[in-house]
Amino acid sequence: MTDIYINDIGTALGSLREQNDAQSLGQAEADCLRIVDKTGIRSRPVAAEHEYSSDLACTATNALLTETGTVATDVGALLVCTQTPDHLIPGVSSRVHGRLGFPKSCFVLDINQGCSGFVIGTQVMTNWLRATGGSGILVNADTYSKLVRPHDLTTRVIFGDAATATMLSTRRGGFRVVHCRSFADGSGYDAFVARGSALRNDQHQQAGIYMDGPGILNFALQAVPDAITQTLADVNRSLGDIRMVLFHQANRFIIGQLAKKLKLAKEQTPCNYSDLGNTVSASIPLLLKEQMNQLQPGDLVLTVGFGVGLSWGAALLERVKD
Amino acid sequence: MTDIYINDIGTALGSLREQNDAQSLGQAEADCLRIVDKTGIRSRPVAAEHEYSSDLACTATNALLTETGTVATDVGALLVCTQTPDHLIPGVSSRVHGRLGFPKSCFVLDINQGCSGFVIGTQVMTNWLRATGGSGILVNADTYSKLVRPHDLTTRVIFGDAATATMLSTRRGGFRVVHCRSFADGSGYDAFVARGSALRNDQHQQAGIYMDGPGILNFALQAVPDAITQTLADVNRSLGDIRMVLFHQANRFIIGQLAKKLKLAKEQTPCNYSDLGNTVSASIPLLLKEQMNQLQPGDLVLTVGFGVGLSWGAALLERVKD
Repeated sequence: MTDIYINDIGTALGSLREQNDAQSLGQAEADCLRIVDKTGIRSRPVAAEHEYSSDLACTATNALLTETGTVATDVGALLVCTQTPDHLIPGVSSRVHGRLGFPKSCFVLDINQGCSGFVIGTQVMTNWLRATGGSGILVNADTYSKLVRPHDLTTRVIFGDAATATMLSTRRGGFRVVHCRSFADGSGYDAFVARGSALRNDQHQQAGIYMDGPGILNFALQAVPDAITQTLADVNRSLGDIRMVLFHQANRFIIGQLAKKLKLAKEQTPCNYSDLGNTVSASIPLLLKEQMNQLQPGDLVLTVGFGVGLSWGAALLERVKD
Repeated sequence: MTDIYINDIGTALGSLREQNDAQSLGQAEADCLRIVDKTGIRSRPVAAEHEYSSDLACTATNALLTETGTVATDVGALLVCTQTPDHLIPGVSSRVHGRLGFPKSCFVLDINQGCSGFVIGTQVMTNWLRATGGSGILVNADTYSKLVRPHDLTTRVIFGDAATATMLSTRRGGFRVVHCRSFADGSGYDAFVARGSALRNDQHQQAGIYMDGPGILNFALQAVPDAITQTLADVNRSLGDIRMVLFHQANRFIIGQLAKKLKLAKEQTPCNYSDLGNTVSASIPLLLKEQMNQLQPGDLVLTVGFGVGLSWGAALLERVKD
């Protein structure tokens, strides 16, 4: 089986910044302090009024092309993972393809996943590259702020708008994709849903994101450790072999609980939510980019996504010599 | 490389039926007759007010499970191709997974493609099954009628609401997937777009589907023959080897022009648009299901999708003994 590598990651943040304080949120100071303390999120990047997922996706992809010295016409696949597209028809990948001049031979597709979208996108792209060779870009781009109900503090203070563009290829460098595994439980569809966001008539409810926080927490605390065990068992590994576990940056409380349950040391679970918030499927690649130079060849890194769907999974990566 | 087969297809139609006549459309009779004559579409299935892509997807998937005697817990992957989801968050695949009791180990994902979505979905699923083995279901489900502007006759009379559920697996039977190839041109993003359908603020325009008909026609007449030539050349085949070409059922005029340009006989290009309309990515599997028993083991069938994105591609299939 051909080895596939994550070579590099380009990033983009929403161009505005919202503080999680009483003044910015128009809420009581005690409520804001309590929420910042529990979530660990102080401020978040937010897309401007006329800034969309396609804009963040293009900026991140352009950054990646520049950093890696890649010309768009050499890219064989462009996969955009988003749940907040500009339009239902066509996909964001079509906009990125057209704006940045990718070739007609490029495989172009939007996929819809939330916080497990980096793991699932890596699975799809890895399978693609194993069949075709060459290189492909996985974009993770969302602007959840446009779907948050402004008075629903439990979601508003959490989500940040961002995009990443991840280069995957058969060229050794960065991280080798060792193994991926994903899971789903559609019986949890209603635990995280954006009412009135597409075709279904949800007129009896205010449009926007509804999250069953305790439900999602219980799900994550059960499903994530099981998924980690199964993913590692598939390749005869255990947590003791892993240098870092990069969790989807949901918030401080949930990551803390997971780290405790899995007996992970603080230095094994680096976090970046405090000034990024939960950037949905971009959160893992944002963190992976930050940690890339802290890792030595041979180090194993487990990335773990979980959330809406319900959908969850893990991708085991090995840092290799660049 | 492991061979992957399209074993069977389940179908579902929108539960209402709209005639393309003066009374149903509230338009002048001469206009309706002219449009029916050009498109070849007399009537179309239309989803009821509270009938959504997830409902059609579940019905088609249930039909497939019943017809093939498959239990949901044996299915390893569930891919839903739609551009008209119930919600942006989560995807339709999550709803189908939950309602029909698919297992937690199932790979579950929505992809967003229009009229090339059967070819592209087949590519993604084929790569998946080559990596994992087992079986997967590709659902193609759309309810474009909910996005059509009622007074825009050029689109309203064309689109039908339907879903298909296609079983793919490593088990020999039905059609062998010989080769797939897809193409994209995002510079044509605006040639077919649903304004006001997701996050972008298009308030200066009435919400709904906008189609540049002549632009799409010119694109198809150029791109489709080229794609066919390239797809067949990849596997050292030519059109002379092909028993049937199953075009995406866009409408009579465009299919007629393509058949003429490619010098295909009428019996080589069966059509079913007259009482289904253009059912987006479900149109090819609906036609494939109809033609399955007309074909002999060894017959080669080329399925060809093209449309919104712009996105187009071809999948070469070989009928095998069941």
